[in-house]
Amino acid sequence: MEILVVGSVALDSIKTPFGFREEILGGSATYFSLAASYFTEVCLVAVVGEDFPESHIEFFRKRGIDTSGLERQHGKTFRWKGEYGFDLNTAKTLETQLNVFADFSPKIRPQHRASKFLFLGNIDPDLQRSVLGQMDNPRLVACDTMNYWIDHKLESLKKTLSVADILLINDAETRQLASEPSLLKAARIILAGGPKTLVIKRGEHGVVMINAKSIFCAPAYPVEEVNDPTGAGDSFAGGFVGFLAATEAADEAALRKAIVFGSVMASFNVSEFGPGRLASLTYPEIEARFREFRRLTFFDDI
Amino acid sequence: MEILVVGSVALDSIKTPFGFREEILGGSATYFSLAASYFTEVCLVAVVGEDFPESHIEFFRKRGIDTSGLERQHGKTFRWKGEYGFDLNTAKTLETQLNVFADFSPKIRPQHRASKFLFLGNIDPDLQRSVLGQMDNPRLVACDTMNYWIDHKLESLKKTLSVADILLINDAETRQLASEPSLLKAARIILAGGPKTLVIKRGEHGVVMINAKSIFCAPAYPVEEVNDPTGAGDSFAGGFVGFLAATEAADEAALRKAIVFGSVMASFNVSEFGPGRLASLTYPEIEARFREFRRLTFFDDI
Repeated sequence: MEILVVGSVALDSIKTPFGFREEILGGSATYFSLAASYFTEVCLVAVVGEDFPESHIEFFRKRGIDTSGLERQHGKTFRWKGEYGFDLNTAKTLETQLNVFADFSPKIRPQHRASKFLFLGNIDPDLQRSVLGQMDNPRLVACDTMNYWIDHKLESLKKTLSVADILLINDAETRQLASEPSLLKAARIILAGGPKTLVIKRGEHGVVMINAKSIFCAPAYPVEEVNDPTGAGDSFAGGFVGFLAATEAADEAALRKAIVFGSVMASFNVSEFGPGRLASLTYPEIEARFREFRRLTFFDDI
Repeated sequence: MEILVVGSVALDSIKTPFGFREEILGGSATYFSLAASYFTEVCLVAVVGEDFPESHIEFFRKRGIDTSGLERQHGKTFRWKGEYGFDLNTAKTLETQLNVFADFSPKIRPQHRASKFLFLGNIDPDLQRSVLGQMDNPRLVACDTMNYWIDHKLESLKKTLSVADILLINDAETRQLASEPSLLKAARIILAGGPKTLVIKRGEHGVVMINAKSIFCAPAYPVEEVNDPTGAGDSFAGGFVGFLAATEAADEAALRKAIVFGSVMASFNVSEFGPGRLASLTYPEIEARFREFRRLTFFDDI
């Protein structure tokens, strides 16, 4: 089943201890779409400027992504410049140029309004709800957010969360959003405010998924060579929502497998700069790593 | 089967955001012995001073721990004072008084030399090998170490590792010992130097076990109320070696279950100050949490 994703498409300049790349394809909706495209059809809703290379749009299309919702506006494309130290866990933002993204006001085309799976990437929570309001009747709404919206638009963010099925968020943001240092207690506070399921991303330490009935803990796939962690969270989200949409399910068993598929996509993504590895993957490689993940975490009963 | 453990028995003063305790029972061998005592017989080899309360020795005996190797020397008991911030991940040492522990030279009594499972706690690697040299023919030798010995006694530590079966170590120490930022690469370097299996403890982020044939990743059990992380690593080690000794096995399946039992013991331990929870546990509670751990990490095949 089709997914509609709204978020950023950017040109990133990235420095890690293993290299430097200038103005490569980036943005949350980019990583999400590429990862999800291995599982199902994806409609990308985002904005780029006049300077955005046609070759990148061609690249999306080659992966079967519907780019008819990718607006091209007068002005320059959103640019992000960041640097990672040796621990690779947190990016230091060196520069952000919002450019055309500053006035992004997503319009959902009539042919996309019936999408049953919706991913609201990390944008202004007002815009997230405006997108949701344009949709017919999505079956599953997942969303992302970041510390900036917790700091500056908390009330609007809470309204978005009250209508979301799944919130994907990192551990520091979980604690910040709930003003509570214990991760589990913070999760319960957030769940009380709306989303049925909370997916807490902990980078190289894996993922915890919490809902009213259960907790699922998955380690990150141990990657020998991490070259660039940019897009790990978004490629995780793409694999996660992508698998759910492909199987048209969102029960506990499906959610758990989706978490593992998300982890698999993130693990591939970080091995190369930018979204490079998400271009060259094959589905058998993804399945093989899913099975390796089972072997990595399996232990017998007593 | 019996375990012999050599390490520290101390009086700890601990401050966490949730309280303060002065001169309570502590030390690596204390936490290890108490956790392991739920699985098998344990002989404790350590040194205390004249001021060490008889009630603590009584406490060990009540848990069935053989204290005949616990020497009492002239002088004061080893004291450690530490503080944890809200993240609870790293202790800040405020004061260390080695006292009688400074001249600790463990003598293994004849009746203990036949122990088949040996745990060399975090002491001078010269002493670790001296203990090993006094043993008849242990079937499994596990050891711990810390950054101090990596900094000050690296060559001696390498000799100890060359004769150990299992090294338990945290992630920062793994990277430091191998001078390699990638955890997996660092692990391979350490394994090339001797130990057959490396158990990397990552605190609230779980455990990674690596040997030549496989990798096993286990999350930490999600604890709602962490009150005092002191002894988490040692109670993990106690559950881990305790289970192996009880089942007299060290194949991959047993090692994986042992990792989970170690995680279970650590998760109980951190819920109360000092080793308090390790006194009040029951084996059915331990088994129930092992099974909960399976539910926490289980996902279906595709």
